[in-house]
Amino acid sequence: MTTAALIEQIRLKKSFLCIGLDVDLNKIPKHLLEEEDPIFAFNKEIIDATHHLCVAYKPNTAFYEAYGIKGWKALEKTINYLNANYPYIFTIADAKRGDIGNTSTMYAKAFLEDLGFDSVTVAPYMGKDSVEPFLAFKDKHTILLALTSNEGAYDYQTKIIEGKELYKQVLETSKTYANAENLMYVVGATKASFLTDIRKIIPDSFLLVPGVGAQGGSLKEVCRYGMSKNIGLLINSSRGIIYASSDRNFAQAAAIKAKELQVQMEDELKVLS
Amino acid sequence: MTTAALIEQIRLKKSFLCIGLDVDLNKIPKHLLEEEDPIFAFNKEIIDATHHLCVAYKPNTAFYEAYGIKGWKALEKTINYLNANYPYIFTIADAKRGDIGNTSTMYAKAFLEDLGFDSVTVAPYMGKDSVEPFLAFKDKHTILLALTSNEGAYDYQTKIIEGKELYKQVLETSKTYANAENLMYVVGATKASFLTDIRKIIPDSFLLVPGVGAQGGSLKEVCRYGMSKNIGLLINSSRGIIYASSDRNFAQAAAIKAKELQVQMEDELKVLS
Repeated sequence: MTTAALIEQIRLKKSFLCIGLDVDLNKIPKHLLEEEDPIFAFNKEIIDATHHLCVAYKPNTAFYEAYGIKGWKALEKTINYLNANYPYIFTIADAKRGDIGNTSTMYAKAFLEDLGFDSVTVAPYMGKDSVEPFLAFKDKHTILLALTSNEGAYDYQTKIIEGKELYKQVLETSKTYANAENLMYVVGATKASFLTDIRKIIPDSFLLVPGVGAQGGSLKEVCRYGMSKNIGLLINSSRGIIYASSDRNFAQAAAIKAKELQVQMEDELKVLS
Repeated sequence: MTTAALIEQIRLKKSFLCIGLDVDLNKIPKHLLEEEDPIFAFNKEIIDATHHLCVAYKPNTAFYEAYGIKGWKALEKTINYLNANYPYIFTIADAKRGDIGNTSTMYAKAFLEDLGFDSVTVAPYMGKDSVEPFLAFKDKHTILLALTSNEGAYDYQTKIIEGKELYKQVLETSKTYANAENLMYVVGATKASFLTDIRKIIPDSFLLVPGVGAQGGSLKEVCRYGMSKNIGLLINSSRGIIYASSDRNFAQAAAIKAKELQVQMEDELKVLS
């Protein structure tokens, strides 16, 4: 999926919401546990009920790997279901991978080619040759961790390295990578005040923003400091939406929560029109 | 597996060799492709032929994820085979994971509990709360990326941050984590000259050292600068051993290459006795 197509979808749906499909069998409605594949059954209902309110879905691979082969099958079924039924949804494998060159190529193929995700999240610690293999895929996107939403982000990411915070070095250097136009960045909503500085370095790039909701970030703040002329934001909510209810009506409850965010986003988008 | 048990195995076998099980179907002997599970068939033969020459095996998860469910099954079969038949082998899931706290816990359970690996490699970029969940498992080990073997290591890892290289900050701060005694570190053999400085910070910790062989690192140099009084080294070789031959005798060819390294290691261990 091209960036232009993503922007068009945002404008059509008046939403830049990404829904995190972080499925925990301890939290989903009990009746689903009788299904052959409870994880996929949960995802399918959530997707069918919310696809018109969001532009992206983001399964975090940890939640699938935690269930071994069953989990991996559910991940495959979920991405196949999305690609078959909602091809204009942007899909993100939140995998936070990164390894030496030939190994990163294996990960890139796994997520972008074989599973068919539009994008994958990547950790920058191992530098250029660990990231570039992901960038080689046409109309696919690499979402590089810049400033994450957790407390540990202050351990290294915000520390000064050669006169500039590490996360800014990551932004600056990654702009010089081959196929850098395929780059997006993770910037946590819990650090919205950093967005002014970030936009000076990458004025147009899309940012995947976790941390709204359960982690305490504010949608309004993120939009004020982070929105670009082409929106440039995908705001993720996981737990706040998918676990809105543990009853049989969980998917409708999720849709209500997603709608609340979509309405706020529609309001924020008015400043651009 | 405890660190003491690992050290005992090293002394018994006179080897601190780790064999990387990075299986690429394009590189394994053609006759194995007729097997129901060629990846596991390859691993089983390699393991049976080399287990007495090494103390650890390290599958890199990228090579398994690249084959989807089939790959994940082969990974499960490989670790189960190792745990059932060679329980005193130290097993490493080279996964380079790391995420916000509750998500890191999912990864830790997947690799250390469900799959039953002794250890998992973890990327430090997201800081303390992304690493500590891995450290909570008794007699399991977290192998933190410090200074990797690739060229990209010079992008951030060796840059000065608050008066000290980033990889040294990672070493220093990780020593203060809860259950830090369960920590080991990745230090690339291609950067052996850095080991003197590294040993000043972590004199006793085990180092997993990739990059000997295909990537050009020298075993002798690594031992000179990196060996501790309890050895403290696991030296990994992947391609140089497992792809020594693509004939039917591939496992014997691998054993010959492993034996070459084991003999060199036996020699290096003499300085400690």
